[in-house]
Amino acid sequence: MGMTGLLGVLGGMGPLAAADFFRKLVSLTPARCDQEHIPLVIYSVPQIPDRVAAINDGGESPLPAMLAGVRALKAAGALRIAIACNTAHYWADELEREGGVPILHIADAACDALARRVPRGATLGLMGTRGTLAAGFYQKRLAARGYGCITSTDEEIEQLVHPAIAAVKRNALDTAAGLARTVVERLRAAGAAAVILGCTEIPVAVDHAGPDVAAHCVDATHALAGACLAWWQGHIATAARAQ
Amino acid sequence: MGMTGLLGVLGGMGPLAAADFFRKLVSLTPARCDQEHIPLVIYSVPQIPDRVAAINDGGESPLPAMLAGVRALKAAGALRIAIACNTAHYWADELEREGGVPILHIADAACDALARRVPRGATLGLMGTRGTLAAGFYQKRLAARGYGCITSTDEEIEQLVHPAIAAVKRNALDTAAGLARTVVERLRAAGAAAVILGCTEIPVAVDHAGPDVAAHCVDATHALAGACLAWWQGHIATAARAQ
Repeated sequence: MGMTGLLGVLGGMGPLAAADFFRKLVSLTPARCDQEHIPLVIYSVPQIPDRVAAINDGGESPLPAMLAGVRALKAAGALRIAIACNTAHYWADELEREGGVPILHIADAACDALARRVPRGATLGLMGTRGTLAAGFYQKRLAARGYGCITSTDEEIEQLVHPAIAAVKRNALDTAAGLARTVVERLRAAGAAAVILGCTEIPVAVDHAGPDVAAHCVDATHALAGACLAWWQGHIATAARAQ
Repeated sequence: MGMTGLLGVLGGMGPLAAADFFRKLVSLTPARCDQEHIPLVIYSVPQIPDRVAAINDGGESPLPAMLAGVRALKAAGALRIAIACNTAHYWADELEREGGVPILHIADAACDALARRVPRGATLGLMGTRGTLAAGFYQKRLAARGYGCITSTDEEIEQLVHPAIAAVKRNALDTAAGLARTVVERLRAAGAAAVILGCTEIPVAVDHAGPDVAAHCVDATHALAGACLAWWQGHIATAARAQ
Protein backbone atom coordinates (compact mmCIF):
# COMPACT_ATOMS: atom_id res chain seq x y z
CA MET A 1 0.00 0.00 0.00
CA GLY A 2 2.93 2.35 0.58
CA MET A 3 3.42 2.59 -3.18
CA THR A 4 -0.13 3.62 -4.04
CA GLY A 5 0.18 7.30 -3.17
CA LEU A 6 -1.25 9.31 -0.31
CA LEU A 7 -3.53 12.15 0.71
CA GLY A 8 -2.01 15.62 0.93
CA VAL A 9 -3.45 17.94 3.56
CA LEU A 10 -2.85 21.65 3.17
CA GLY A 11 -3.11 23.01 6.70
CA GLY A 12 -1.72 25.88 8.70
CA MET A 13 -4.78 28.09 8.16
CA GLY A 14 -4.91 27.63 11.10
CA PRO A 15 -2.99 24.86 12.81
CA LEU A 16 -5.63 23.83 15.36
CA ALA A 17 -8.16 23.46 12.53
CA ALA A 18 -5.70 21.17 10.70
CA ALA A 19 -5.20 19.12 13.88
CA ASP A 20 -8.98 18.85 14.22
CA PHE A 21 -9.25 17.64 10.62
CA PHE A 22 -6.48 15.07 11.18
CA ARG A 23 -8.15 13.69 14.30
CA LYS A 24 -11.57 13.53 12.64
CA LEU A 25 -10.15 11.73 9.62
CA VAL A 26 -8.35 9.13 11.75
CA SER A 27 -11.37 8.66 14.02
CA LEU A 28 -13.67 8.15 11.04
CA THR A 29 -11.47 5.48 9.44
CA PRO A 30 -12.65 1.91 10.11
CA ALA A 31 -9.08 0.62 10.59
CA ARG A 32 -8.19 -2.39 12.74
CA CYS A 33 -4.49 -1.49 12.94
CA ASP A 34 -2.02 1.23 11.91
CA GLN A 35 -1.53 -0.19 8.44
CA GLU A 36 -5.23 0.20 7.52
CA HIS A 37 -5.24 3.95 8.17
CA ILE A 38 -4.94 6.45 5.31
CA PRO A 39 -1.38 7.45 4.38
CA LEU A 40 -1.13 11.22 4.40
CA VAL A 41 1.17 14.18 4.69
CA ILE A 42 0.06 17.39 6.39
CA TYR A 43 1.74 20.63 5.36
CA SER A 44 1.03 23.04 8.20
CA VAL A 45 3.13 26.14 7.57
CA PRO A 46 1.01 28.99 8.92
CA GLN A 47 3.28 31.82 7.75
CA ILE A 48 0.78 32.60 4.97
CA PRO A 49 -0.76 36.02 4.19
CA ASP A 50 -4.24 36.46 5.70
CA ARG A 51 -6.89 35.01 3.40
CA VAL A 52 -9.80 37.25 4.39
CA ALA A 53 -7.70 40.39 4.00
CA ALA A 54 -6.65 39.26 0.52
CA ILE A 55 -10.24 38.61 -0.62
CA ASN A 56 -12.01 41.55 1.00
CA ASP A 57 -9.39 44.23 1.49
CA GLY A 58 -6.90 43.80 -1.35
CA GLY A 59 -4.21 42.37 0.95
CA GLU A 60 -1.26 40.30 -0.18
CA SER A 61 -2.28 37.09 -1.97
CA PRO A 62 -1.73 33.83 -0.06
CA LEU A 63 -1.70 31.91 -3.37
CA PRO A 64 2.10 31.61 -3.79
CA ALA A 65 2.52 30.28 -0.23
CA MET A 66 -0.37 27.84 -0.65
CA LEU A 67 1.01 26.70 -4.02
CA ALA A 68 4.36 25.99 -2.34
CA GLY A 69 2.44 23.78 0.06
CA VAL A 70 0.60 21.94 -2.70
CA ARG A 71 3.88 21.37 -4.54
CA ALA A 72 5.55 20.00 -1.40
CA LEU A 73 2.60 17.63 -0.93
CA LYS A 74 2.78 16.55 -4.57
CA ALA A 75 6.51 15.89 -4.19
CA ALA A 76 5.72 13.72 -1.14
CA GLY A 77 3.34 11.61 -3.23
CA ALA A 78 -0.08 13.28 -2.85
CA LEU A 79 -2.72 12.08 -5.33
CA ARG A 80 -5.47 14.28 -3.86
CA ILE A 81 -5.36 17.47 -1.78
CA ALA A 82 -7.64 18.33 1.12
CA ILE A 83 -7.48 21.94 2.30
CA ALA A 84 -8.25 22.33 6.01
CA CYS A 85 -9.51 25.90 5.56
CA ASN A 86 -12.74 27.03 3.91
CA THR A 87 -11.64 30.56 3.00
CA ALA A 88 -8.61 29.18 1.13
CA HIS A 89 -11.01 27.46 -1.28
CA TYR A 90 -11.45 30.87 -2.91
CA TRP A 91 -8.21 29.85 -4.71
CA ALA A 92 -9.16 26.18 -5.19
CA ASP A 93 -9.32 26.35 -9.01
CA GLU A 94 -5.93 28.04 -9.32
CA LEU A 95 -4.36 25.70 -6.75
CA GLU A 96 -5.65 22.69 -8.63
CA ARG A 97 -4.61 24.00 -12.05
CA GLU A 98 -1.17 25.28 -11.06
CA GLY A 99 -0.44 22.66 -8.41
CA GLY A 100 -1.35 19.72 -10.63
CA VAL A 101 -3.19 17.68 -7.97
CA PRO A 102 -7.03 17.36 -7.80
CA ILE A 103 -8.62 18.98 -4.76
CA LEU A 104 -11.39 17.39 -2.70
CA HIS A 105 -13.50 20.56 -2.27
CA ILE A 106 -14.77 21.15 1.26
CA ALA A 107 -18.04 22.75 0.11
CA ASP A 108 -18.87 19.75 -2.10
CA ALA A 109 -18.24 17.51 0.91
CA ALA A 110 -20.36 19.66 3.24
CA CYS A 111 -23.25 19.89 0.76
CA ASP A 112 -23.17 16.10 0.21
CA ALA A 113 -23.27 15.59 3.99
CA LEU A 114 -26.16 17.99 4.58
CA ALA A 115 -28.16 16.53 1.68
CA ARG A 116 -28.25 13.26 3.66
CA ARG A 117 -30.05 14.89 6.60
CA VAL A 118 -31.78 18.13 5.52
CA PRO A 119 -34.71 17.98 3.06
CA ARG A 120 -34.45 19.93 -0.18
CA GLY A 121 -36.15 23.30 0.04
CA ALA A 122 -35.01 23.98 3.59
CA THR A 123 -33.06 27.07 4.55
CA LEU A 124 -29.52 26.60 5.87
CA GLY A 125 -27.52 28.98 8.00
CA LEU A 126 -23.99 29.55 6.76
CA MET A 127 -21.30 30.50 9.25
CA GLY A 128 -17.97 31.53 7.77
CA THR A 129 -15.50 34.33 7.30
CA ARG A 130 -16.26 37.47 5.32
CA GLY A 131 -13.93 36.00 2.71
CA THR A 132 -15.84 32.74 2.40
CA LEU A 133 -19.19 34.50 2.24
CA ALA A 134 -17.91 36.94 -0.40
CA ALA A 135 -16.41 34.08 -2.44
CA GLY A 136 -19.90 32.55 -2.74
CA PHE A 137 -18.89 28.93 -3.30
CA TYR A 138 -21.27 27.68 -0.59
CA GLN A 139 -24.23 29.82 -1.70
CA LYS A 140 -23.81 28.66 -5.32
CA ARG A 141 -23.78 24.98 -4.34
CA LEU A 142 -26.74 25.37 -1.95
CA ALA A 143 -28.83 27.12 -4.60
CA ALA A 144 -27.98 24.42 -7.15
CA ARG A 145 -29.26 21.78 -4.73
CA GLY A 146 -32.46 23.67 -3.97
CA TYR A 147 -31.62 25.03 -0.53
CA GLY A 148 -32.13 28.51 0.80
CA CYS A 149 -29.22 30.18 2.63
CA ILE A 150 -29.02 32.82 5.33
CA THR A 151 -25.89 34.29 6.84
CA SER A 152 -25.03 36.42 9.85
CA THR A 153 -25.20 40.20 9.47
CA ASP A 154 -21.99 42.12 8.77
CA GLU A 155 -22.08 43.36 12.35
CA GLU A 156 -22.45 39.82 13.73
CA ILE A 157 -19.57 38.63 11.56
CA GLU A 158 -17.30 41.36 12.91
CA GLN A 159 -18.42 41.04 16.52
CA LEU A 160 -19.03 37.29 16.87
CA VAL A 161 -17.83 35.11 13.98
CA HIS A 162 -14.39 36.61 13.36
CA PRO A 163 -13.63 36.91 17.09
CA ALA A 164 -14.60 33.23 17.56
CA ILE A 165 -12.20 32.22 14.78
CA ALA A 166 -9.41 34.41 16.14
CA ALA A 167 -9.93 32.90 19.60
CA VAL A 168 -9.43 29.36 18.24
CA LYS A 169 -6.23 30.51 16.51
CA ARG A 170 -4.85 31.64 19.88
CA ASN A 171 -6.13 28.53 21.74
CA ALA A 172 -8.82 30.45 23.69
CA LEU A 173 -11.48 27.76 23.30
CA ASP A 174 -13.89 28.84 26.06
CA THR A 175 -14.17 32.28 24.48
CA ALA A 176 -14.56 30.77 21.02
CA ALA A 177 -17.26 28.34 22.18
CA GLY A 178 -19.40 31.06 23.74
CA LEU A 179 -19.29 33.20 20.61
CA ALA A 180 -20.00 30.27 18.29
CA ARG A 181 -22.98 29.22 20.40
CA THR A 182 -24.51 32.69 20.06
CA VAL A 183 -24.08 32.70 16.27
CA VAL A 184 -25.67 29.26 15.90
CA GLU A 185 -28.59 30.29 18.11
CA ARG A 186 -29.20 33.49 16.12
CA LEU A 187 -29.10 31.71 12.75
CA ARG A 188 -31.56 29.10 14.03
CA ALA A 189 -33.82 31.83 15.42
CA ALA A 190 -33.71 33.44 11.96
CA GLY A 191 -35.07 30.23 10.42
CA ALA A 192 -32.06 28.01 9.67
CA ALA A 193 -32.94 24.29 9.73
CA ALA A 194 -29.24 23.62 10.39
CA VAL A 195 -26.06 25.68 10.40
CA ILE A 196 -23.14 24.90 8.10
CA LEU A 197 -19.88 25.42 9.98
CA GLY A 198 -18.13 26.84 6.94
CA CYS A 199 -14.84 27.77 8.58
CA THR A 200 -12.55 25.06 9.95
CA GLU A 201 -11.95 26.93 13.22
CA ILE A 202 -15.67 26.93 14.01
CA PRO A 203 -16.12 23.15 14.53
CA VAL A 204 -13.30 23.32 17.10
CA ALA A 205 -15.30 26.00 18.93
CA VAL A 206 -18.64 24.18 18.53
CA ASP A 207 -17.21 20.81 19.67
CA HIS A 208 -15.87 22.63 22.73
CA ALA A 209 -19.31 24.24 23.30
CA GLY A 210 -20.88 20.80 23.52
CA PRO A 211 -23.27 18.39 21.79
CA ASP A 212 -26.35 20.60 22.31
CA VAL A 213 -24.84 23.12 19.88
CA ALA A 214 -23.14 20.61 17.56
CA ALA A 215 -26.44 18.76 17.05
CA HIS A 216 -27.80 21.67 14.99
CA CYS A 217 -24.73 22.00 12.81
CA VAL A 218 -23.19 20.51 9.66
CA ASP A 219 -19.45 20.26 10.34
CA ALA A 220 -17.63 20.91 7.05
CA THR A 221 -14.37 19.57 8.53
CA HIS A 222 -16.03 16.26 9.38
CA ALA A 223 -17.64 16.18 5.94
CA LEU A 224 -14.26 16.75 4.26
CA ALA A 225 -12.78 13.90 6.32
CA GLY A 226 -15.63 11.68 5.10
CA ALA A 227 -14.96 12.67 1.47
CA CYS A 228 -11.24 11.90 1.89
CA LEU A 229 -12.04 8.50 3.37
CA ALA A 230 -14.46 7.71 0.52
CA TRP A 231 -11.82 8.73 -2.05
CA TRP A 232 -9.16 6.59 -0.36
CA GLN A 233 -11.41 3.54 -0.11
CA GLY A 234 -12.23 3.84 -3.82
CA HIS A 235 -8.57 4.34 -4.65
CA ILE A 236 -7.32 1.22 -2.87
CA ALA A 237 -10.20 -0.85 -4.26
CA THR A 238 -9.21 0.21 -7.78
CA ALA A 239 -5.53 -0.47 -7.07
CA ALA A 240 -6.39 -3.93 -5.72
CA ARG A 241 -8.45 -4.81 -8.83
CA ALA A 242 -5.58 -3.67 -11.07
CA GLN A 243 -3.15 -6.14 -9.50
CA MET B 1 9.65 33.10 8.92
CA GLY B 2 8.64 30.84 6.03
CA MET B 3 12.29 30.72 4.98
CA THR B 4 13.71 29.64 8.34
CA GLY B 5 12.88 25.96 8.10
CA LEU B 6 10.33 23.86 9.89
CA LEU B 7 9.71 20.95 12.23
CA GLY B 8 9.33 17.52 10.69
CA VAL B 9 6.99 15.11 12.45
CA LEU B 10 7.36 11.41 11.70
CA GLY B 11 3.94 9.97 12.48
CA GLY B 12 1.81 7.07 11.36
CA MET B 13 2.86 4.81 14.26
CA GLY B 14 -0.05 5.22 14.86
CA PRO B 15 -2.08 7.98 13.26
CA LEU B 16 -4.21 8.89 16.29
CA ALA B 17 -1.03 9.28 18.35
CA ALA B 18 0.35 11.65 15.70
CA ALA B 19 -2.91 13.64 15.74
CA ASP B 20 -2.67 13.82 19.54
CA PHE B 21 0.90 15.12 19.28
CA PHE B 22 -0.14 17.73 16.69
CA ARG B 23 -3.00 19.00 18.84
CA LYS B 24 -0.82 19.13 21.97
CA LEU B 25 1.92 21.03 20.15
CA VAL B 26 -0.52 23.60 18.76
CA SER B 27 -2.33 23.97 22.10
CA LEU B 28 0.96 24.50 23.93
CA THR B 29 2.15 27.25 21.57
CA PRO B 30 1.58 30.78 22.91
CA ALA B 31 0.56 32.13 19.50
CA ARG B 32 -1.76 35.09 19.02
CA CYS B 33 -2.50 34.29 15.39
CA ASP B 34 -1.81 31.63 12.71
CA GLN B 35 1.52 33.14 11.73
CA GLU B 36 3.00 32.70 15.23
CA HIS B 37 2.43 28.93 15.24
CA ILE B 38 5.27 26.52 14.47
CA PRO B 39 5.65 25.61 10.78
CA LEU B 40 5.68 21.85 10.45
CA VAL B 41 5.09 18.93 8.16
CA ILE B 42 3.65 15.67 9.42
CA TYR B 43 4.47 12.48 7.54
CA SER B 44 1.82 9.98 8.62
CA VAL B 45 2.19 6.94 6.38
CA PRO B 46 1.23 4.01 8.60
CA GLN B 47 2.10 1.26 6.12
CA ILE B 48 5.25 0.50 8.15
CA PRO B 49 6.31 -2.92 9.47
CA ASP B 50 5.37 -3.47 13.12
CA ARG B 51 8.03 -2.04 15.43
CA VAL B 52 7.53 -4.35 18.40
CA ALA B 53 7.64 -7.45 16.19
CA ALA B 54 10.91 -6.21 14.67
CA ILE B 55 12.58 -5.60 18.06
CA ASN B 56 11.31 -8.62 19.97
CA ASP B 57 10.48 -11.26 17.40
CA GLY B 58 12.89 -10.70 14.51
CA GLY B 59 10.18 -9.28 12.23
CA GLU B 60 10.81 -7.11 9.18
CA SER B 61 12.65 -3.89 10.01
CA PRO B 62 10.63 -0.67 9.83
CA LEU B 63 13.85 1.33 9.35
CA PRO B 64 13.66 1.72 5.53
CA ALA B 65 10.06 2.98 5.69
CA MET B 66 10.89 5.37 8.55
CA LEU B 67 13.97 6.62 6.69
CA ALA B 68 11.79 7.35 3.65
CA GLY B 69 9.67 9.47 5.97
CA VAL B 70 12.64 11.34 7.40
CA ARG B 71 13.95 12.02 3.90
CA ALA B 72 10.55 13.34 2.76
CA LEU B 73 10.50 15.63 5.80
CA LYS B 74 14.04 16.81 5.09
CA ALA B 75 13.08 17.53 1.47
CA ALA B 76 10.16 19.62 2.77
CA GLY B 77 12.54 21.73 4.87
CA ALA B 78 12.72 19.99 8.25
CA LEU B 79 15.55 21.17 10.53
CA ARG B 80 14.57 18.88 13.41
CA ILE B 81 12.55 15.67 13.54
CA ALA B 82 10.04 14.69 16.22
CA ILE B 83 8.93 11.05 16.15
CA ALA B 84 5.39 10.56 17.47
CA CYS B 85 6.11 6.97 18.57
CA ASN B 86 8.26 5.81 21.47
CA THR B 87 9.06 2.33 20.17
CA ALA B 88 10.41 3.81 16.92
CA HIS B 89 13.12 5.54 18.97
CA TYR B 90 14.86 2.16 19.06
CA TRP B 91 16.14 3.28 15.62
CA ALA B 92 16.69 6.96 16.58
CA ASP B 93 20.48 6.88 16.14
CA GLU B 94 20.30 5.26 12.69
CA LEU B 95 17.47 7.57 11.60
CA GLU B 96 19.48 10.60 12.66
CA ARG B 97 22.72 9.39 11.07
CA GLU B 98 21.24 8.15 7.80
CA GLY B 99 18.45 10.73 7.56
CA GLY B 100 20.72 13.69 8.18
CA VAL B 101 18.34 15.63 10.46
CA PRO B 102 18.76 15.87 14.27
CA ILE B 103 16.02 14.15 16.27
CA LEU B 104 14.39 15.64 19.37
CA HIS B 105 14.34 12.41 21.44
CA ILE B 106 11.06 11.71 23.22
CA ALA B 107 12.73 10.08 26.24
CA ASP B 108 14.98 13.11 26.80
CA ALA B 109 11.86 15.28 26.68
CA ALA B 110 9.92 13.03 29.08
CA CYS B 111 12.82 12.82 31.56
CA ASP B 112 13.27 16.61 31.48
CA ALA B 113 9.55 17.02 32.16
CA LEU B 114 9.46 14.56 35.04
CA ALA B 115 12.60 16.05 36.62
CA ARG B 116 10.59 19.25 37.10
CA ARG B 117 7.98 17.51 39.28
CA VAL B 118 9.37 14.27 40.74
CA PRO B 119 12.25 14.41 43.27
CA ARG B 120 15.47 12.55 42.47
CA GLY B 121 15.56 9.15 44.10
CA ALA B 122 11.90 8.42 43.49
CA THR B 123 10.71 5.33 41.64
CA LEU B 124 8.87 5.85 38.37
CA GLY B 125 6.49 3.47 36.66
CA LEU B 126 7.20 3.00 32.96
CA MET B 127 4.36 2.05 30.66
CA GLY B 128 5.33 1.11 27.13
CA THR B 129 5.46 -1.62 24.54
CA ARG B 130 7.59 -4.74 24.92
CA GLY B 131 9.79 -3.17 22.27
CA THR B 132 10.33 0.08 24.17
CA LEU B 133 11.03 -1.77 27.43
CA ALA B 134 13.50 -4.11 25.70
CA ALA B 135 15.22 -1.18 23.98
CA GLY B 136 16.00 0.30 27.42
CA PHE B 137 16.34 3.95 26.41
CA TYR B 138 14.01 5.09 29.20
CA GLN B 139 15.59 2.92 31.91
CA LYS B 140 19.08 4.15 30.97
CA ARG B 141 18.05 7.81 31.19
CA LEU B 142 16.13 7.32 34.45
CA ALA B 143 19.11 5.58 36.08
CA ALA B 144 21.46 8.35 34.91
CA ARG B 145 19.22 10.90 36.60
CA GLY B 146 18.98 8.94 39.85
CA TYR B 147 15.47 7.51 39.48
CA GLY B 148 14.30 3.99 40.10
CA CYS B 149 12.09 2.35 37.47
CA ILE B 150 9.44 -0.34 37.63
CA THR B 151 7.51 -1.80 34.74
CA SER B 152 4.45 -3.96 34.30
CA THR B 153 4.92 -7.73 34.32
CA ASP B 154 5.16 -9.58 31.01
CA GLU B 155 1.66 -10.90 31.61
CA GLU B 156 0.28 -7.39 32.27
CA ILE B 157 1.97 -6.11 29.12
CA GLU B 158 0.34 -8.82 27.01
CA GLN B 159 -3.07 -8.61 28.67
CA LEU B 160 -3.38 -4.88 29.42
CA VAL B 161 -0.76 -2.61 27.84
CA HIS B 162 -0.65 -4.01 24.32
CA PRO B 163 -4.44 -4.39 24.13
CA ALA B 164 -4.83 -0.75 25.24
CA ILE B 165 -2.46 0.38 22.48
CA ALA B 166 -4.19 -1.78 19.88
CA ALA B 167 -7.55 -0.37 20.95
CA VAL B 168 -6.36 3.22 20.33
CA LYS B 169 -5.12 2.18 16.88
CA ARG B 170 -8.64 1.00 15.99
CA ASN B 171 -10.34 4.04 17.63
CA ALA B 172 -11.82 2.02 20.54
CA LEU B 173 -11.08 4.65 23.18
CA ASP B 174 -13.42 3.46 25.94
CA THR B 175 -11.75 0.04 25.91
CA ALA B 176 -8.29 1.64 25.80
CA ALA B 177 -9.09 3.98 28.69
CA GLY B 178 -10.25 1.18 30.98
CA LEU B 179 -7.12 -0.88 30.34
CA ALA B 180 -4.78 2.08 30.78
CA ARG B 181 -6.45 3.02 34.06
CA THR B 182 -5.79 -0.47 35.43
CA VAL B 183 -2.12 -0.39 34.44
CA VAL B 184 -1.58 3.03 36.03
CA GLU B 185 -3.29 1.89 39.24
CA ARG B 186 -1.17 -1.28 39.45
CA LEU B 187 2.11 0.58 38.90
CA ARG B 188 1.17 3.12 41.56
CA ALA B 189 0.20 0.31 43.95
CA ALA B 190 3.64 -1.22 43.26
CA GLY B 191 5.30 2.01 44.44
CA ALA B 192 5.52 4.31 41.42
CA ALA B 193 5.53 8.00 42.37
CA ALA B 194 4.31 8.72 38.84
CA VAL B 195 3.84 6.73 35.65
CA ILE B 196 5.65 7.62 32.44
CA LEU B 197 3.31 7.14 29.49
CA GLY B 198 6.08 5.83 27.25
CA CYS B 199 3.96 4.91 24.24
CA THR B 200 2.20 7.64 22.25
CA GLU B 201 -1.08 5.71 22.12
CA ILE B 202 -1.28 5.62 25.91
CA PRO B 203 -1.80 9.37 26.52
CA VAL B 204 -4.77 9.20 24.13
CA ALA B 205 -6.22 6.45 26.32
CA VAL B 206 -5.36 8.19 29.60
CA ASP B 207 -6.77 11.56 28.45
CA HIS B 208 -9.95 9.70 27.54
CA ALA B 209 -9.96 8.01 30.98
CA GLY B 210 -10.02 11.41 32.66
CA PRO B 211 -7.98 13.80 34.82
CA ASP B 212 -7.98 11.52 37.87
CA VAL B 213 -5.76 9.08 35.95
CA ALA B 214 -3.78 11.69 34.01
CA ALA B 215 -2.81 13.47 37.22
CA HIS B 216 -0.51 10.59 38.18
CA CYS B 217 1.19 10.38 34.80
CA VAL B 218 4.03 11.98 32.84
CA ASP B 219 2.80 12.30 29.26
CA ALA B 220 5.77 11.77 26.93
CA THR B 221 3.78 13.13 23.97
CA HIS B 222 3.12 16.38 25.81
CA ALA B 223 6.78 16.51 26.89
CA LEU B 224 7.94 16.06 23.28
CA ALA B 225 5.61 18.87 22.20
CA GLY B 226 7.22 21.07 24.87
CA ALA B 227 10.72 20.18 23.62
CA CYS B 228 9.70 21.01 20.05
CA LEU B 229 8.31 24.37 21.14
CA ALA B 230 11.48 25.17 23.11
CA TRP B 231 13.62 24.27 20.09
CA TRP B 232 11.53 26.42 17.78
CA GLN B 233 11.56 29.42 20.11
CA GLY B 234 15.35 29.20 20.35
CA HIS B 235 15.62 28.79 16.60
CA ILE B 236 13.60 31.87 15.71
CA ALA B 237 15.37 33.93 18.39
CA THR B 238 18.73 32.97 16.85
CA ALA B 239 17.44 33.70 13.34
CA ALA B 240 16.19 37.12 14.48
CA ARG B 241 19.55 38.01 16.03
CA ALA B 242 21.35 36.97 12.85
CA GLN B 243 19.38 39.44 10.73
